[in-house]
Amino acid sequence: MKKGELLYEGKAKRIYATDENGLVWVEYKDSATAFNGVKKAEITGKGMLNNKISSLLFSKLHQENIASHFVEQLSDTEQLVKKVDIIPLEVVVRNTVAGTLSKRLGIPEGTPLKKTLVELYYKDDALGDPLLTEDHIEELALADKEEVEMLKQKALQINRILIPFFKELGVSLIDFKLEFGKTEDNEILLADEISPDTCRLWDIATNERLDKDVFRRDLGNLTDAYEKILTKLGENLHV
Amino acid sequence: MKKGELLYEGKAKRIYATDENGLVWVEYKDSATAFNGVKKAEITGKGMLNNKISSLLFSKLHQENIASHFVEQLSDTEQLVKKVDIIPLEVVVRNTVAGTLSKRLGIPEGTPLKKTLVELYYKDDALGDPLLTEDHIEELALADKEEVEMLKQKALQINRILIPFFKELGVSLIDFKLEFGKTEDNEILLADEISPDTCRLWDIATNERLDKDVFRRDLGNLTDAYEKILTKLGENLHV
Repeated sequence: MKKGELLYEGKAKRIYATDENGLVWVEYKDSATAFNGVKKAEITGKGMLNNKISSLLFSKLHQENIASHFVEQLSDTEQLVKKVDIIPLEVVVRNTVAGTLSKRLGIPEGTPLKKTLVELYYKDDALGDPLLTEDHIEELALADKEEVEMLKQKALQINRILIPFFKELGVSLIDFKLEFGKTEDNEILLADEISPDTCRLWDIATNERLDKDVFRRDLGNLTDAYEKILTKLGENLHV
Repeated sequence: MKKGELLYEGKAKRIYATDENGLVWVEYKDSATAFNGVKKAEITGKGMLNNKISSLLFSKLHQENIASHFVEQLSDTEQLVKKVDIIPLEVVVRNTVAGTLSKRLGIPEGTPLKKTLVELYYKDDALGDPLLTEDHIEELALADKEEVEMLKQKALQINRILIPFFKELGVSLIDFKLEFGKTEDNEILLADEISPDTCRLWDIATNERLDKDVFRRDLGNLTDAYEKILTKLGENLHV
């Protein structure tokens, strides 16, 4: 496998071509960004941690028959994944109130939700990733009704797998963001990453934040927090 | 009928008790506010115009069998209405892209929507009246599923009445906001007001704004614009 030309650079990852059709090479960067890029920093080791955590979580989900773009971890900071066109929807699953939901509904952070919430946001930095209703999605033709329902059901299925998995590690899965993409054959796969950048993970015993809120809210050392998640995952998965 | 004690003062109206059970006395104020109260002004004549326009529109809707809280116009600035507990949802119907929808979806103002949109916002000034999904409404227990569906259907029915009615006056109904309330007998009635404060109304021939955007965007004299709407309505309804 050969790493080819740079195809795309996002806030947290670079995507390169490979010499194999349908596969791309992902490099996790050390950049941390928050509030739609307003807050930025370079944090040495973050790319490695997210690459390793994401690889472990995609592997766990594969075992549970959740198809994703993930093929294999290539190095500390690199992954091989299937090439997909990302559907421009951020699928957010929430078990406990936190972050923007707390501000939107006026409910204190940490309040358990009566029912798991799935929200859909428009993946568009220029617009600030706004919340969308299903009618908005139809108007923008971002996905059809069946696809939206499928994304929501898939996200809930992943939630049902990840909640007990993290619970065993002493971690509460507060909320997380998923992205999906379409292969050339129009197959919809879980894509992007699953990491403390995209999940809220609270230590059950101490309520310590083990996710990007450490960076967003200046709560301490980000890599210490992510390292704790990686260690817990590694012990559990015997890697 | 006797005007009793002040029960509630909102941004645009005061509500007084009456000596008759189940009825309250509404006084339209001359206050104009926008951007969640950040922009404010006193505009002489605005209360009278909105009271008269709202009375005419509620009357028109009554003729079309849309039940509302409206009983009768009492004076230039006053109305008698049935007492309701307002459901804290702003039901927004949109035929053409404008305002916050343009910003949310990145679609230019004036673009016709493929399908009429109904959006639900949380009527909560402290939270900035945020957009809600139906799952949020369920979480907050603001209304049950059947009620939400009923509000949306009622809003679409009102839209189907008002579009051709305004069109005959040479005015395009771009979007509007409705509020509903519950009587003591749990009957859901259209409530609040329907006026250029709560509708976007564009002159079909000139695209001139004949609504609160004149105030929000400093486009000219607000009462001139509202006066045009009242004159058109008066001529059409032969009042």
